[in-house]
Amino acid sequence: MRTLYLFMMISLDGYFEGKNHDLSWHNANNEEFQNFVAKQNATIDTILMGKTTYEMMRDFWPSEDAQTTDPLTAEFMSTTKKYVFSHEPYEPKWENAETIHEDINVRVQALKEEPGKDIAIFGSNILAVSLMEAGLVDEFRIMINPIAIGAGTPLFHGITKPLQLSLTATTQFQSGNVLTIYKNT
Amino acid sequence: MRTLYLFMMISLDGYFEGKNHDLSWHNANNEEFQNFVAKQNATIDTILMGKTTYEMMRDFWPSEDAQTTDPLTAEFMSTTKKYVFSHEPYEPKWENAETIHEDINVRVQALKEEPGKDIAIFGSNILAVSLMEAGLVDEFRIMINPIAIGAGTPLFHGITKPLQLSLTATTQFQSGNVLTIYKNT
Repeated sequence: MRTLYLFMMISLDGYFEGKNHDLSWHNANNEEFQNFVAKQNATIDTILMGKTTYEMMRDFWPSEDAQTTDPLTAEFMSTTKKYVFSHEPYEPKWENAETIHEDINVRVQALKEEPGKDIAIFGSNILAVSLMEAGLVDEFRIMINPIAIGAGTPLFHGITKPLQLSLTATTQFQSGNVLTIYKNT
Repeated sequence: MRTLYLFMMISLDGYFEGKNHDLSWHNANNEEFQNFVAKQNATIDTILMGKTTYEMMRDFWPSEDAQTTDPLTAEFMSTTKKYVFSHEPYEPKWENAETIHEDINVRVQALKEEPGKDIAIFGSNILAVSLMEAGLVDEFRIMINPIAIGAGTPLFHGITKPLQLSLTATTQFQSGNVLTIYKNT
């Protein structure tokens, strides 16, 4: 079965986004991070996103700005299969994108059982929490940025019970980021 | 000048305490953690605490329970010099303890300039934030526990502006804890 992993950037004080969805504190503007992302992307062929994250991605990656500054990721984001999760029918308006609006857990379980590379959730906290609590997320890749931002939305906001995890790896980056990888216990 | 460091245990989702000051999720009940604490304690001769943390320590460490289960730390906590920070005059009622209730930043700066071992802040988020924002905390030792608790008080709760830090070391423990150490930039 394919691994479904969540990748999240968080601040040292545990927020995945600042006030007003601010992500400007992401310590990502360096070659080391780009190399990490390229390597990680090479292991997946499917991305799951909530509607908010999806629309940010859809508005950014096909833009001329993205094509110029990061053509490899722009190409990857457009050619990779994307599932956007919505409570209602939704027209995704991006190539290789499809909406899942009902039977979410069953559909995700079926995706995991299909042959193929791994599956990633990028950002999308509400979707992530829902799939986590259904036991469908196999791996948690949390990258801790070397900054405290003081306010925002905490990682896993909305979980209804404590989640005990099992640490499998830690990587320290030159940039000051720390990647911690956990599995479900 | 002596280093003033903050040591904090946090959950993966960034809380230093759960609801109602819950710390029962601390992944500390193992020999590896006890060895780490003993080694860390050997480098300090002074502890700074806010009144809430101080009273928890004062009520616990001299108890028979603590003397039996962890006599070394009990001895260390009683013999080490402790400063408790209070807005008003306060009778600390524990050996080697003294209250600082005014000119806090000046007093802490003076302590740092005295000869001796390093100085630690354990827990005490409000005190830590106040000293951090005054530029008096040199090092941040944040130990990330492998659990998401979903609610509580976030690390550095109350900071008034983002704090950019510089990562100096990462240590992965068998227990699943990750210790990250940062300096002020």
